[in-house]
Amino acid sequence: MLAAAELMHVQGVAATTIDEVLAASATSKSQFYQHFEDKAELVYEVITQRADEVLSWQRLRLEKVDSFRGLYQWRDAMVQRCALRRGLWGCELGSLAAELSDTDDRARASLSEYFNEWRALLAAALERMRDTGILREDADIRALATGLLAAVEGGYLLSQTGRDPRLMQAALNMAIGHVASFAAATEPVS
Amino acid sequence: MLAAAELMHVQGVAATTIDEVLAASATSKSQFYQHFEDKAELVYEVITQRADEVLSWQRLRLEKVDSFRGLYQWRDAMVQRCALRRGLWGCELGSLAAELSDTDDRARASLSEYFNEWRALLAAALERMRDTGILREDADIRALATGLLAAVEGGYLLSQTGRDPRLMQAALNMAIGHVASFAAATEPVS
Repeated sequence: MLAAAELMHVQGVAATTIDEVLAASATSKSQFYQHFEDKAELVYEVITQRADEVLSWQRLRLEKVDSFRGLYQWRDAMVQRCALRRGLWGCELGSLAAELSDTDDRARASLSEYFNEWRALLAAALERMRDTGILREDADIRALATGLLAAVEGGYLLSQTGRDPRLMQAALNMAIGHVASFAAATEPVS
Repeated sequence: MLAAAELMHVQGVAATTIDEVLAASATSKSQFYQHFEDKAELVYEVITQRADEVLSWQRLRLEKVDSFRGLYQWRDAMVQRCALRRGLWGCELGSLAAELSDTDDRARASLSEYFNEWRALLAAALERMRDTGILREDADIRALATGLLAAVEGGYLLSQTGRDPRLMQAALNMAIGHVASFAAATEPVS
C-alpha cells in the first residue's frame, strides 16, 4: 500500500499501473485481487491511508494550539515539512485532489470530506482562541479556517513548482496575518 | 493542440497517450511527428499555450487595477470563472504543476516562470496602489503578491474538490483582507 501511495504521488494515479504496484510491493496478482476488486478500489484505499497520515500529523500539531504563538509554531512545522521532503514536494492530499477531482467523483467526494476534517482542526484552534478572548467575538471562524487551508494548499503548490519553501512561508504568513486582524486589542500578535 | 490540452487537463498528462491526441484532433502520426519530437515536446507546448491563455486573461483583468474596488472586481471575475467552468474546475496551470513538478524538471521550471509572471502582474497592481498612497509605504509588495497567488491556487484546489466556488471566494477574501491591513488610514477599504 505504501508502495502504491508513493508511486501514485510521484508519477500520478493515472500513470501508475497495477503491474508496477505489484513489482514495487513484491505482491502477486492473486494476492492483490484478494484485497482489491480493481484499481479504483486501490486508489480509494490510497486516499484513505494518505488522509489518515496527513490528518494525524495535523491533529498532533493543531489540537493544542490556542494562541498566535501556537499558530506560528504550526506554520514553522509546515514550512519545515515542505523543505524536508525534497523531491516529493506536494501535499499528499492536494496532489491526489488535483489529479482526481474532475474524473473520479467517488475520490473527489472522499478528498473533499478529508479537507473538511482538516479545516475543522484549524477551526477548532481558532475557536479556542476566540473562547479565551484572543480573537474577537465577530471573527468568522469558518471563513478564517477556509483561508488557512487554502493558504496551505496554495503554498504547497507554489513551493513545489518553485522548489522554494519560502513560498509556503509567505502563504501562511498572509493567512495568519489575516487572522491577526481579528485579534482583540489586548493580545500581542507575533 | 487544444485537444491535447483539454485531454491532459481532464485525464492528466501521464494518462494521455499520443494516439488519443491524434484521434481527438484528427491528426495523422506523420503530421504529429513533423511538429513534435516526442510527447515531452507536446507537453511543453501545451504548458506554453495554457500559460499564454491564463496570463492574457489575468493581464486583461489586472493591468488597470489600482484600488481595492479593482481587486474585488478581479476577485469576482475569478470566482465566476471558477463557477462557469463546471466539470473543468482546476487552474489550468496549477493542475499541470501539481502533476508534473516532481517528475519533469523542464516542465516544472517553465511553470515556475509562468507563476512568477502571474505574481508580477499582481505585484504591479499593488505597486500602483502603493504609489498612489492607497497602500502604506511599508507594505511588502512581493510577499503580498505571493500571498494573493497562493490564495488563488489554494482556492482553485478547494473549489475543485468541494465543487463550491465559495471556497475560492473565501480564499481571495482572506488575501485581499490581508492586503487591506496595509491600507493607508485615509482609504476606505471595501
